[in-house]
This record gives sequence, structure tokens and C-alpha cells, in this order.
Amino acid sequence: MRNEYELLTDLYQLTMAQGYWETGQGATQACFHAYFRDYPFRGGYAVACGFDQLAELIDDFAFTQDDADYLASLDAPGGGKLFRPEFLEYLRTFRLRVDIDAPAEGTIVFPHEPLVRVMGPIMDCQLIETALLNCVNFETLIATKAARVCLAAHGAPVAEFGLRRAQGAGGGMWASRAAVVGGCASTSNVLAGKRYGLPVSGTHAHSWVMSFPDELSAFRAYAQEFPHNCVLLVDTYNVEQGIENAITVGLEMRQRGQRLAGIRIDSGDLAWLAKMARRMLDAAGLTDCGIVLSNDLDEYTIQSILDEGAPVTSWGVGTKLACAFDQPTLGGVYKLSATRAPGQTEWTDRLKISESAAKLTVPGVLDVRRYYHDDGHIAGDMVFDMNAGVGEREVIVDPLDSLRQKNLSGKRFETLLSPLVRNGEVVLDQAHRSAMEAQRRCREGLASLDESQKRMLNPHTYPVGLEYGLCERRRALVGKLRGIA
Amino acid sequence: MRNEYELLTDLYQLTMAQGYWETGQGATQACFHAYFRDYPFRGGYAVACGFDQLAELIDDFAFTQDDADYLASLDAPGGGKLFRPEFLEYLRTFRLRVDIDAPAEGTIVFPHEPLVRVMGPIMDCQLIETALLNCVNFETLIATKAARVCLAAHGAPVAEFGLRRAQGAGGGMWASRAAVVGGCASTSNVLAGKRYGLPVSGTHAHSWVMSFPDELSAFRAYAQEFPHNCVLLVDTYNVEQGIENAITVGLEMRQRGQRLAGIRIDSGDLAWLAKMARRMLDAAGLTDCGIVLSNDLDEYTIQSILDEGAPVTSWGVGTKLACAFDQPTLGGVYKLSATRAPGQTEWTDRLKISESAAKLTVPGVLDVRRYYHDDGHIAGDMVFDMNAGVGEREVIVDPLDSLRQKNLSGKRFETLLSPLVRNGEVVLDQAHRSAMEAQRRCREGLASLDESQKRMLNPHTYPVGLEYGLCERRRALVGKLRGIA
Repeated sequence: MRNEYELLTDLYQLTMAQGYWETGQGATQACFHAYFRDYPFRGGYAVACGFDQLAELIDDFAFTQDDADYLASLDAPGGGKLFRPEFLEYLRTFRLRVDIDAPAEGTIVFPHEPLVRVMGPIMDCQLIETALLNCVNFETLIATKAARVCLAAHGAPVAEFGLRRAQGAGGGMWASRAAVVGGCASTSNVLAGKRYGLPVSGTHAHSWVMSFPDELSAFRAYAQEFPHNCVLLVDTYNVEQGIENAITVGLEMRQRGQRLAGIRIDSGDLAWLAKMARRMLDAAGLTDCGIVLSNDLDEYTIQSILDEGAPVTSWGVGTKLACAFDQPTLGGVYKLSATRAPGQTEWTDRLKISESAAKLTVPGVLDVRRYYHDDGHIAGDMVFDMNAGVGEREVIVDPLDSLRQKNLSGKRFETLLSPLVRNGEVVLDQAHRSAMEAQRRCREGLASLDESQKRMLNPHTYPVGLEYGLCERRRALVGKLRGIA
Repeated sequence: MRNEYELLTDLYQLTMAQGYWETGQGATQACFHAYFRDYPFRGGYAVACGFDQLAELIDDFAFTQDDADYLASLDAPGGGKLFRPEFLEYLRTFRLRVDIDAPAEGTIVFPHEPLVRVMGPIMDCQLIETALLNCVNFETLIATKAARVCLAAHGAPVAEFGLRRAQGAGGGMWASRAAVVGGCASTSNVLAGKRYGLPVSGTHAHSWVMSFPDELSAFRAYAQEFPHNCVLLVDTYNVEQGIENAITVGLEMRQRGQRLAGIRIDSGDLAWLAKMARRMLDAAGLTDCGIVLSNDLDEYTIQSILDEGAPVTSWGVGTKLACAFDQPTLGGVYKLSATRAPGQTEWTDRLKISESAAKLTVPGVLDVRRYYHDDGHIAGDMVFDMNAGVGEREVIVDPLDSLRQKNLSGKRFETLLSPLVRNGEVVLDQAHRSAMEAQRRCREGLASLDESQKRMLNPHTYPVGLEYGLCERRRALVGKLRGIA
């Protein structure tokens, strides 16, 4: 079965497409940006992700005869057919002509700056809007959540195993990949491991223990089968007895020249039980046996368990990571910012105004400059119009409060967006699409943040602003649209 | 690309499978049940869903050479390969031998009763655990959320359009289907419409308006293109002006013998704006023009808007429905409840005990009897052991409080679980897998609830209990496992 990404869209994108095609608007060049407005999880950063899937959807995008037949079957609510046969005929040979730019996956990003820029005929830009937002919103959300969880674990490996609680098979697949981009050492999701080249991990469940006459024989059988990878789950019946049984098996393994890699505790007061387990294991001489904790964990519970001084070797995090339990959506939007009529060379600014300052869009063809302090920490991000360029004084203005400005002149900078798609063809090579490469980039990016930005509670807000000239241009345009210019 | 559901699993299911295969435990017959412990959204019911996808995964389940090659490539953390070549050879010819029973999709269900029963060799039961939980957890959650939203809308049609904020492409697909099962009149998701036979709907976005020189020409062009399906979005620049422009176009359409179907408001104070719009439309004589509201709606905002007396023709609900924003996971589990060694005829009870009464499992091979009052309302659900049957006195006992009992003797009842899979083959025909059929079933089921169970705040708790004899058996087993019998 194909992914059929061309139909993974809101119906109105297709009705509008027919409208553009019919009115001749289809040839108008447009520039859209996807961005989000609020820090996810009330944190101080986000981790860009989802561009590998975006590339996949661009690669796959083509309307089949089957698609056309389906669309031809749709009735308009008021009578007649919804789509014209000539338009569906046109779709059959339609090929995307968009250019797409985005930061590399794993890059640290912030609200109000373009996360994806799409340029091309307005019809093309809109036909991919829904699927683009779907993958970028979700994967950026999960990669960010994973980064938070892994920072809380202070370097101890975190295994993601939320597939059973994820939002559908697809939700689980991309959650596993994004979790690794954000810093997870492995996933339990075998298919995600296979498709995206992620490390996979896992040992056994309560049912293994329950299917044997008693816990000790279950543990012995598992150690026999997996002597190089033996982590025993000790809480099926009684944790203390479970640890005793694990110690018995651990000592037997040692006699055979093997090592009990660890025990896992999946219920109860994890901090208390981990300390008890450590004492019991050490007393038995199994000082090299690790302790794995799991059960409804997130960055807050991990921090609290470590604050109590619990000795934890590694963590398993499921539900609350895979569906971003405390904020299950990023809320990213996709807004038109400029158009260019056929034959014209100049772009015309487009703006959606709103009663709420936060919902006001930014006009132009945008990119982001990230400025750095001499010590390698990031100093501020500037959203600028590529066609207008950046003035000599490199000043940014807070889009929500024009009195907050910051001068970044003279600092080293890099530009964030780079080509992902050109004229409908994916131009990013496979090496740059790798999840492990994105994980490395994310780790470096997190290191470039100040500690105050990584704080869980009330983190420091990083300066992101509009380039001074762009801000002035937007102000004038708002006045004009509101009729006060 | 195949769905590859056979690998959509936690790695430990495969390591355990090798363990079962190696120890000869693989032939042990097992009975597992999937169920959830808490009412989603603090409500009074849930809507069973996800069995169509479950059937799809059973149909697709087979390990390919490609799968075996991937598994063969995995290293054990402690050295060597994780899987034995002989086991992978066995997987290549492996075929599922499970029987699966579940309620029909759309059936109203409650915590602590089996949502799915799986019987077969323990290895087979575990190989499908993760993917089964993934689809049943998520779709039941969304169908339930949709039912709540649609009940709040009091019969006005609700369109689901959350794809852009859903958790991945797959999350969006199954969310759209489950939303329709729960009562939504349509979805914006074209691919879900095509694959699952759902009604699709949608008109135009802000970008349509922004791409024209002015709003009035954008409205005129849209009305020209879609005279039978014209709903105009009036809040791109200024809602009042937008309504005026829509009225102009509505009157032009009337002169052409057409009808402006509606206007849509997607921002601002929706209740206030809807009343203003109604007044303006009526004053212009467009009394047959509907009002569609959208923007971050859920059951609570819909109720509040209607409480204010806003005149709403239909609703568009996105983000908060498609990812079940206030509770993004159901938390369903899959527990072993009985085993039968090869050659035996009797099942042996299996139980996982825990410090928490709510986490104690129920032993046996279970089904559910739903009892009815004479007036057609439901009276109570009894979880019973199919092999032990039901005693003459049909008494249920609250699993969390054995002093709460209810006598259901003499009432009419039906049994909830019915065959979905037999010996690894899907036996439910396509007609019974239809989403629209499930929607009808859900509507009937909701009608059989008392109003007090459908209340949003502190709903009445419906009696669900264990059959008296089963409850006694469980009590004895807990005592035995805790060594106090």
C-alpha cells in the first residue's frame, strides 16, 4: 500500500486548488512559512524535527487514477459533483514545483521563527500544507519532549517504549524516531528501528514471569536464553522477593562466567525501591548489576527520583513521552507571507491581521540568522527578509513588544534554513536525513544554550526578534490594512 | 510499502518469543484481555473502537525475509547476536494461531471489562500485544472524545478537521475514522474519507482570501467556483466587514438562483460574533445562510457557546479532538489471565497482584453480560468466566469494593464479545467493519445510557462488576499468592 500522501490533506486544499486552477490564480507564486507561537511544555527551546518525513511525502506526492476516481465520486452538499472532470484530469499529471527550506533536523528552534519555508505556485504550496504541518508539528513536539526527559536523566540512557500508548501506528513510528533525535539512547519499537536505523532495546514483561510456575524458574529460563542481555523484571508479585530471586540468578550467572546486566522495577515507589535494590544487590556482591526504572515517567518524575539520590543506571519512558502527555500538540501554523504575480519580479507582502498581537503574521520571504557569543553560546535569533537583506545595524525587535530591542552587530552568525526540496525534488541526501546525525546535532545545540534556558521551571526567554527594517515594514502594513496609515 | 505490522512491536515481545520457543513454553495456551482502568475524560462511558485496524494488522501479519535479515543484524548489548538463526528461520514460516473476540465497534464500554480477548499460544498472543494496544487504546479514546463533543453539539453536525495537529499521519488517519464512529458527521481528511468510506467536508482557508487583491473578489471567485457548496470564511481581516462582504455575495448568488450555504468564523469571541452574524444575515434577508464556528473547540467550549444562546448551524473541531488534548492516551493494558498446558483441558488462573487494588488483574477466560431495564436503558455489566458460567443468582460485585453488590437476576441481557479472528484468520465481514455502521451502533448505545451518565461534570457511575463466583475465586487466589490462604 502506498502512503498516498497526496490525499493526506484537508478537503479544502483541493477545493481551493480547483479554484486557483479555474481562476488562473494557480500560477501566482507564493511564499508560506510554518512556525509555532509558544514554547512547548513551558520550556525554553524546541528541537526541530519532521523533515525526513516531509522529504518522504514530497517524494511520494502524485495523484493516481484511483485518487482521481475517488475525488470524482464526491458530491457537493448542495447538489452535483464537487470537482470538475477537467481539474481532476489536470491533477493526474500534476507534479509539485515547490522549493522547501528548513533547518537541519535536531537544530534548536524558537517560537515565531520560520521552521519551514515553502515557495512555489500557491496551489502547490497549499496542497502540501496539511501533511507538512502534521509531520513537523508532531515530530518537533516529541523531539523536544525527549530532549527535556534526557536532560533530566543527566546522561543516564533513556529508552523510549511508548508504542502501545502512542496515537496510532503512525504516531508511534514517528514518535520513536523523534525521541531518538531528541536524545533517547534507544527505542523498543522494532519497526522504527528497522526503518529509521535506530538502536532498539528491551528484555521481558510480567507475562513472561506469569507464564512460568514460579518467578525463579522464569528468571533462570530468561538468563539461560539471554546471557548477554539479561535484565530481570522484579515486580510481578513482590519486589523484595523479586530482587532476591534476581540475586540468586545473578550469582548463578557469575558462576558460569556471565553477568546479570540489571534488574527493572516498573511499579511502586521507584526511588525507595531503587535504593533498597542497590543495597541488596551490593550486599550480595552484585555491584555491577544495574537498576532500570520505568512506569509513567517524565522529566519531572525523573528529576524528583534523582533529587532523592536514587541510584539509577538507565530509564524506560513510555506513555508520557510518546504522546507528549502534558501537551499533545505543538500548534504550529502555515501562513502566506508574500505573493508574486506571473511575470513580476518583486514580491508583494501578505499579512493576516488579527485582534491578537501574537497571531499577527510576518510578511516577506524569511530566513533566520542565529548569532553567537564568543564562548559558543547563542546570543539571539534574527528573522529577516531575504530580499531586503539585513541593515548595517544588526538590531532585532521583539515581535510582541517593539520597545524590546537588541543589537547583535558584529557577532558571528549562521543562517538556519537550508534547501530540502528544489522544484519538487528532494535535494537533501540520505546522510543528512539520518536520525543519529540529527541526535548529534541536537546534543551540540543543547550545549550551546545557557543553563538558564534549559531550566524546567520558568526558563530564561531567548531573544528572537524581527530585523529592524522588517519590523518597520510590518508596522506600516498593519496600519494600511486597518485603514489608519 | 507494506504496513509491516509484524514488526510494529516492542522488542521484548520478540526476545520473549525466542524464549518461549526455546523453552518449549511456546505451545502453552494463554488467554489475555485488553482493558482500561479509568473512565476517559472523567466521563461516564467510552466508545469501543479500533477493531477494524486490528483486523487489518492480523491480515497483514507475516515475517518476511527482510524482517528476518533485520532481526539477524541486531547485536546483544553484552556481545554476540540477539537472536538465534534457528528462531528467525522459524519466524519466516510463522503464522498466527490466535482467536480474538471483541465488542462490535461503536459499542459503549466501561472500565475493568474486557475490551478485547485474545486466546492462543502464548507466543502468538504476545507478538500482537503492542500493536493491538496501540490501535485499541487510541481509537477508543478518540471515538469517546468525539461522542462527548457531538453530544455537546446537541445534534448540530460536527466536522472533524484536526489532521494538521494530529500525532503523525497514522495518528491523523485513525483519529478521523474514530471521530466519525463517535458521531462526527464528516472529516476534512481526504485520505481517511477514501480509505474508510467517511463523508468528507471543507471549503476554503484564510490563504484563499489573502491571495486575492481584496476579500470581496476572493468571495466572489469562490462562489463562482462552488455555487452548491459555498461557505465563506469571514475573519481574515475584520469579521464585521467579512460578513458584509459575504452578504453582498450571498445576495448576488440569490439573484443567480443560488444559495450561500454559510459563513464560517474561526477566531475571536465566537458566541458574540455568531449572534452578530445572525442579526446581520437576517436583516439582509439571508435567513437560510448557516453559521459555522471553529477555533480550538471541544465539548466544554461548545456547551458554553450554546449556553449563551448562540445560533450555530454546524461546528468544526480540530486539534482538541484529533489528539484528545485533555487526555491524549487511554492507558489500556493487556494482561495474562489464564494458561493451559499442552494436552490439558482445564485452564489455570493467572493473576498479577499489586499493592494497588485497581491494578489487580482478573483471572479466567472472560466475557461481559450487559443487562437491560425494561425501558431499554442499561442496568449493569457483569464480567464472568465463560468456563465457569454464571450462577443462578446473577449478582455482580464491584472489583474495587466487594461490599458493593447488585442483583441483576431476571433482567434481559446480551453478551458483548463476538468473534473477530479465528485461528489467525479475520472472520468479521467487511459490512460489520464499516465506520458508518459503527457510528449507528454508537448512537444507539448512547441512547441506552441514562442522561446522568452522559453528564460532563461528575457523571453517574454505571455498575460494572465481577460475577459473584468469579469474585470469590479471585479473592482466594490473591490470598494464596500473598501466602495468607
